Amino acid sequence: MLEKSFHDKVLTFRELAVNMYNQDYLLTWEKDLNEIKATILLADIFKELHKEGISLKTFETGLGISIFRDKSTRTRFSFASACDALGLDVVSLEEEKSQISHGETVRETAVMISFLSEVIGIRDDMYIGTGDSYMREVGKAVKESYDEGVLAQRPAVINLQSDIDHPTQSLSDLSTLVDHFGSVENLKGKKLAMTWTYSSSYGKPLSVPQGIIGLMTRFGMDVTLAYPKGYELMPNVVERAKSFTEQSKGSFQITHSMEDSFKDANVVYPKSWAPFEIMRQRTELLKKKVVQALDELEQECLLENSRHMNWECNQDLMKITRNGDALYMHCLPADISGLSCKQGEVSEEVFQHYKKQLYQQASYKPFVIAAMIFLTRTMDPLVTLEKLIRKNTSRILS
Amino acid sequence: MLEKSFHDKVLTFRELAVNMYNQDYLLTWEKDLNEIKATILLADIFKELHKEGISLKTFETGLGISIFRDKSTRTRFSFASACDALGLDVVSLEEEKSQISHGETVRETAVMISFLSEVIGIRDDMYIGTGDSYMREVGKAVKESYDEGVLAQRPAVINLQSDIDHPTQSLSDLSTLVDHFGSVENLKGKKLAMTWTYSSSYGKPLSVPQGIIGLMTRFGMDVTLAYPKGYELMPNVVERAKSFTEQSKGSFQITHSMEDSFKDANVVYPKSWAPFEIMRQRTELLKKKVVQALDELEQECLLENSRHMNWECNQDLMKITRNGDALYMHCLPADISGLSCKQGEVSEEVFQHYKKQLYQQASYKPFVIAAMIFLTRTMDPLVTLEKLIRKNTSRILS
Amino acid sequence: MLEKSFHDKVLTFRELAVNMYNQDYLLTWEKDLNEIKATILLADIFKELHKEGISLKTFETGLGISIFRDKSTRTRFSFASACDALGLDVVSLEEEKSQISHGETVRETAVMISFLSEVIGIRDDMYIGTGDSYMREVGKAVKESYDEGVLAQRPAVINLQSDIDHPTQSLSDLSTLVDHFGSVENLKGKKLAMTWTYSSSYGKPLSVPQGIIGLMTRFGMDVTLAYPKGYELMPNVVERAKSFTEQSKGSFQITHSMEDSFKDANVVYPKSWAPFEIMRQRTELLKKKVVQALDELEQECLLENSRHMNWECNQDLMKITRNGDALYMHCLPADISGLSCKQGEVSEEVFQHYKKQLYQQASYKPFVIAAMIFLTRTMDPLVTLEKLIRKNTSRILS
Repeated sequence: MLEKSFHDKVLTFRELAVNMYNQDYLLTWEKDLNEIKATILLADIFKELHKEGISLKTFETGLGISIFRDKSTRTRFSFASACDALGLDVVSLEEEKSQISHGETVRETAVMISFLSEVIGIRDDMYIGTGDSYMREVGKAVKESYDEGVLAQRPAVINLQSDIDHPTQSLSDLSTLVDHFGSVENLKGKKLAMTWTYSSSYGKPLSVPQGIIGLMTRFGMDVTLAYPKGYELMPNVVERAKSFTEQSKGSFQITHSMEDSFKDANVVYPKSWAPFEIMRQRTELLKKKVVQALDELEQECLLENSRHMNWECNQDLMKITRNGDALYMHCLPADISGLSCKQGEVSEEVFQHYKKQLYQQASYKPFVIAAMIFLTRTMDPLVTLEKLIRKNTSRILS
Repeated sequence: MLEKSFHDKVLTFRELAVNMYNQDYLLTWEKDLNEIKATILLADIFKELHKEGISLKTFETGLGISIFRDKSTRTRFSFASACDALGLDVVSLEEEKSQISHGETVRETAVMISFLSEVIGIRDDMYIGTGDSYMREVGKAVKESYDEGVLAQRPAVINLQSDIDHPTQSLSDLSTLVDHFGSVENLKGKKLAMTWTYSSSYGKPLSVPQGIIGLMTRFGMDVTLAYPKGYELMPNVVERAKSFTEQSKGSFQITHSMEDSFKDANVVYPKSWAPFEIMRQRTELLKKKVVQALDELEQECLLENSRHMNWECNQDLMKITRNGDALYMHCLPADISGLSCKQGEVSEEVFQHYKKQLYQQASYKPFVIAAMIFLTRTMDPLVTLEKLIRKNTSRILS
Repeated sequence: MLEKSFHDKVLTFRELAVNMYNQDYLLTWEKDLNEIKATILLADIFKELHKEGISLKTFETGLGISIFRDKSTRTRFSFASACDALGLDVVSLEEEKSQISHGETVRETAVMISFLSEVIGIRDDMYIGTGDSYMREVGKAVKESYDEGVLAQRPAVINLQSDIDHPTQSLSDLSTLVDHFGSVENLKGKKLAMTWTYSSSYGKPLSVPQGIIGLMTRFGMDVTLAYPKGYELMPNVVERAKSFTEQSKGSFQITHSMEDSFKDANVVYPKSWAPFEIMRQRTELLKKKVVQALDELEQECLLENSRHMNWECNQDLMKITRNGDALYMHCLPADISGLSCKQGEVSEEVFQHYKKQLYQQASYKPFVIAAMIFLTRTMDPLVTLEKLIRKNTSRILS
């Protein structure tokens, strides 16, 4: 049974009155605050409808295309779940693995797969300067062909993780925070520590920390970014995060001490990443196919990493957070010391303590993606949403 | 047009009054007799509805996940067909091929793929001691997260072949026998020969013969298991088969003569398998990654195999079965002497004679799987079934 | 809003009164003229319904199986789009890559995957003498099992490109021509140049040029086939094209000058292919696995190719076509000189000029495939089509 609080959410959604029809969803900072709020609110509405066993089926037919240029389980299944829930069939575009193709080929392929498609979800996070630009090329190609009348509809391009941002993750994280603190407004003044941690692996993307600082600063949070010197993020993303705090009355600061960041934090997000500068060099070397230099860069990076093995989220650190019980967040899978690796991002004790919350954090992603598709692919999302609710079709015949 | 006999089946289904909601389907001997009967009866009902062109669509949306840790065509398509027929979209989880991963990783992944999933079908039959336990870990993980409220529904784990049992096969075989002899009751006192045969390949799973002796003994059949000395099955499965005959008034015996087993048999099921002891050793060596010892074991096993090339199902043997016309069964694909291999499990003459029946035997599997999903995923299967029948939606608009 | 012209098309479809139920769709010249006309007319009707946002969903459930024995993006997505639009779920049969298996195995597999399937789409275009015959084996197997009652329905086998013909391409091309010239009747007397062009790649299939000359000659077009000596197509296909012109009052001629073919042409279709004789030898060598001879053959072929680098479609040649503005066609992807390759089938200037038309040409394929499935899988396509139109279900809930 849907409760009054549910219908209040629908009313709030109506008031946000967003129109994102025929847009892409690539970087959260390209969306205005109402659009962001509408996305997580709709995700929440969808999650509740699903829990009540009510079908979200919006499309009679149509394809959702997934393009994964990097391994993925969670996001792959989240995208598939979202498409299926809305009524779309997923087809994967399998490219040659080593190919970082651009240009005419990409644009032509984009059109060729889009004749009956509603959404193209892309993960392309491996190389600096390529992921986001690839997604834009795809979006531009389908827009052009739609404008020319070659395509009957314009599929939305959805960023399933690029070199710059990871909006399906950061919006799931925002949903988690809103649920944890009770409302969007309650995020104001809460301290969030986005901190680097040690991992034995090389080259983890920058998109998660960048996505977090680029989003949470817009909601008045006090965001502290912590990392060992040298592990800088993309400068323009950091600049953007700073500038957001002016309007949101939040704050943004950088520290090179994990302790400082955890001190009195309401939320900690300890997560490994590779330095932007290293990733930039690596992309250059990959383009030039200089194998030996690539090996050397990797060795150098791993050596540098090993100097910071003490950057681990453990009980001692958790104790210095606000009341000793900050919310611990991670995009999963985490490198858990002594469990999934020798020495990693988080101690087993901390991880196990927060396991249920971590899984709940992950549970938002399919609904966030469904909301993104719904908002960019229905002409009047409020009308369609109200029809869905009125139809009230059981997901399982019963 | 659905006939009276169809409605009688639905009445019988009502009388069986089973409740398997939120269960897994891993070993047939974990299910009581009524649950087994309900499964094959529902499969039969589904098969008839399908033949009449009536849709079985029960789910508006939802994912069916397949995890194949071994090659498969038949079972893969049977699972896909069952999911599609019920309204679920299939997504495959592709793991790294060599990985026999367990533990935390498996449990986390199980939850991550399950947020909007109704069923997880798993084939993991390669290594003794791993398949069944892997399925149980997945089942336990999704149950835990469902109980904690992290999952809105609890996907059923369905065994698509483990190291121990192959219920989708054995239940299809049971359906075939019931169809052949006219009723479940008529199975009583019929002699079934589950006999080993020669094949040039190495390491065929034990799950088919184990599934057959562990199921048919429950229906009062006289089951004879025949194999050359050394080709023993898992002792506890054999014990279980023996114990079933006490209640069912059937019988179970082991012979080392193919002739003995075929003598007066109503049904013969000649099929190659690897000795349990060899499979056990192999799994140990694989864990230790002792390549040379593995090679030696394989050579030894193939040599031993080659001593039993006369264990082939051919016309001469078929002649000594009951009236010379026992039903010949196989899970397919069979190694057919002179056709798909030099010397194999069955002569071409026998195979061709029974080809139509063999294909019919295979035709039950999609419907058996659909019945398993339906029984474990609908709260009141009778109510939902009756709604399906009343709705009477044509599968093809016409 | 569907216009009067739309309803006129439905009336014309009614008058064609075709019955293709339970047939395969392998070679266009196995279909009579009305069947061909009905296919492209229905494709056109489907395209218009799709554009109007009306669902084409004809099947409640059912599988569409794709078997790709060669790489494909466009046709793969066209097939997936067509199946999805009609309500079928696509499952791919992944065979071992190097396997050119035939015989019992193929026939058995065909039945095993077909218990709940409506269509099997096959691309098998690599080896002379194997693709078309493989499709026929699959079709024969499912027909036999359907006739015996093992299959409840008989899936249609649809040729997604064989060694002989490429009907989904040639019928999309025919749709494009009908749209360009206004009607089927207007094709009469129009000159179409199917001309070989240079490409640096080796072994491009013959099925596109063969499909074009085997189809367009049936509509009274003046078809000129142009290629350097040695680049002959299959003799019996050429014979058939010639013979078609007798009834259609068209013409068919062969020239070895690209200029001759372009002269006054209304339509040009410049496209590379490998000589039939080379492809035949290659298939023989592949069967015998003579690696060195295969390498030599490839070298020889590439050398011969390089002697005809001047066979490129460029502005100079386009100028000598009818009024200097013939329709330029290509099945895509094209080898574009200076863009996707150093020297290729077409200059960038020409390609860019016709890009929009080329994409529109490609846009017909999903609807042509949908029409093929619909015509072979509905007992009375007119009744079902009229129901679809009357139901008028929005593709997107709104």
